Amino acid sequence: MTDTAPTAALLIIGNEILSGRTQDANLAFIARHLGVLGIRFRETRVVPDEEAEIVAAINALRARYTYVFTTGGIGPTHDDITAECIAKAFGVPLIRHPEAVRRLEIHYAGTGMLNEARLRMANTPEGATLIDNPVSTAPGFQIGNVFVMAGVPMIMQAMLTGIGDRLVGGPVVRTKSVASAIPEGSFADALCAIAADYPAVDIGSYPAFRQGRISTSLVLRATDPDLLERATVAVAEMLRALGGEPVVLDGYGE
Amino acid sequence: MTDTAPTAALLIIGNEILSGRTQDANLAFIARHLGVLGIRFRETRVVPDEEAEIVAAINALRARYTYVFTTGGIGPTHDDITAECIAKAFGVPLIRHPEAVRRLEIHYAGTGMLNEARLRMANTPEGATLIDNPVSTAPGFQIGNVFVMAGVPMIMQAMLTGIGDRLVGGPVVRTKSVASAIPEGSFADALCAIAADYPAVDIGSYPAFRQGRISTSLVLRATDPDLLERATVAVAEMLRALGGEPVVLDGYGE
Repeated sequence: MTDTAPTAALLIIGNEILSGRTQDANLAFIARHLGVLGIRFRETRVVPDEEAEIVAAINALRARYTYVFTTGGIGPTHDDITAECIAKAFGVPLIRHPEAVRRLEIHYAGTGMLNEARLRMANTPEGATLIDNPVSTAPGFQIGNVFVMAGVPMIMQAMLTGIGDRLVGGPVVRTKSVASAIPEGSFADALCAIAADYPAVDIGSYPAFRQGRISTSLVLRATDPDLLERATVAVAEMLRALGGEPVVLDGYGE
Repeated sequence: MTDTAPTAALLIIGNEILSGRTQDANLAFIARHLGVLGIRFRETRVVPDEEAEIVAAINALRARYTYVFTTGGIGPTHDDITAECIAKAFGVPLIRHPEAVRRLEIHYAGTGMLNEARLRMANTPEGATLIDNPVSTAPGFQIGNVFVMAGVPMIMQAMLTGIGDRLVGGPVVRTKSVASAIPEGSFADALCAIAADYPAVDIGSYPAFRQGRISTSLVLRATDPDLLERATVAVAEMLRALGGEPVVLDGYGE
């Protein structure tokens, strides 16, 4: 399935993901959020907290996709280098954003805690616009088609939800799932024929082991609801003809 | 922290990850497994089930890292195109691997189930060597520095565990964690000074919200145990001087 809808990529910045310390929880959330907006999520990269890696990845992705999202590296410590790297990628100076400073001043007013390290969280590339952080104040930012967000899932989710009006989507991809106990190898040829009949429907086949038995979920995705319905019926009938008892579900069937 | 140890990248192949249907569970496992072997895990990419995307990513990654691992796309259905793509990336023909056929014939003997679709799981690039699949027989394969594995976590884990003798590691990176309730912004400057004192120690700072309170985990990583110990003591003393009650843990502290 290919179309002309806007596209997106995600850059996950963080040694903690590549060391296995932290299980990423942002990719799947962003994927579903973009799906609802009608934006095609095409690629993710995970890179370490190193300037050359971040700059190269940002420049590769922003040239290729309508929107690029980043997570991680915008806190106050020495390993938080995302803002500097984005400025370098865009070839603009890093500035202290006055509105970001104002927000931090209000947040920390009377605490005596607003030191230089915390003020670093107000640094953005010149020309950036802020992304609100309703959880802990320190903002993300947008420059060009790049949206820089926190890595902490609760904060990232609030940031992403808050920038919906800056993202223009296309037709939304709708999803149906057909589950059965027929193993993949037994319907692969018949499924291939259905996929050829419906080139505008993306069909994926995902085996799983549940309670010691194989279960297969066929996921159909398309923007046209009638086409999606017809392809789903074809898949269900194919499985029934093979002796399965297919269960058709909206979405992914959770 | 940079060194001359072997490096690795992971290519996750699958629309189901980019649609948000499936939460990847392989990255973190591979990260920790490579860590134990002394291999530096430097990058991950997630791409859709599309030939051009897979071929381009494989060729970019295999030129850059000592080892490249892939997950996904080696089943019997039409959306399983990894073997064809790896053959194209290496510029060699796709063949039906005789030993893989033999294993499938034994596995399906007497069932009448070994059809053309299942035999596709015996296809490999010419010159590949098999990776054992003790769970469901259909093998992965290695060609050059690229290791092609299943996407189902149970199978991937068995495959990765089985190829340990093909992977040459370097010095193992050791890890210590120091947890405290001091927020990042209050120790960022002092931590930056310690990081500058210990350039061979990678220090990451990770805030978390636990039971409504901020908790920060400082993770120190280095190959030299004495250096790691000294940097860990410095971090703990710094936090204690700020009024924290630092807890030092081996590894990531789970």
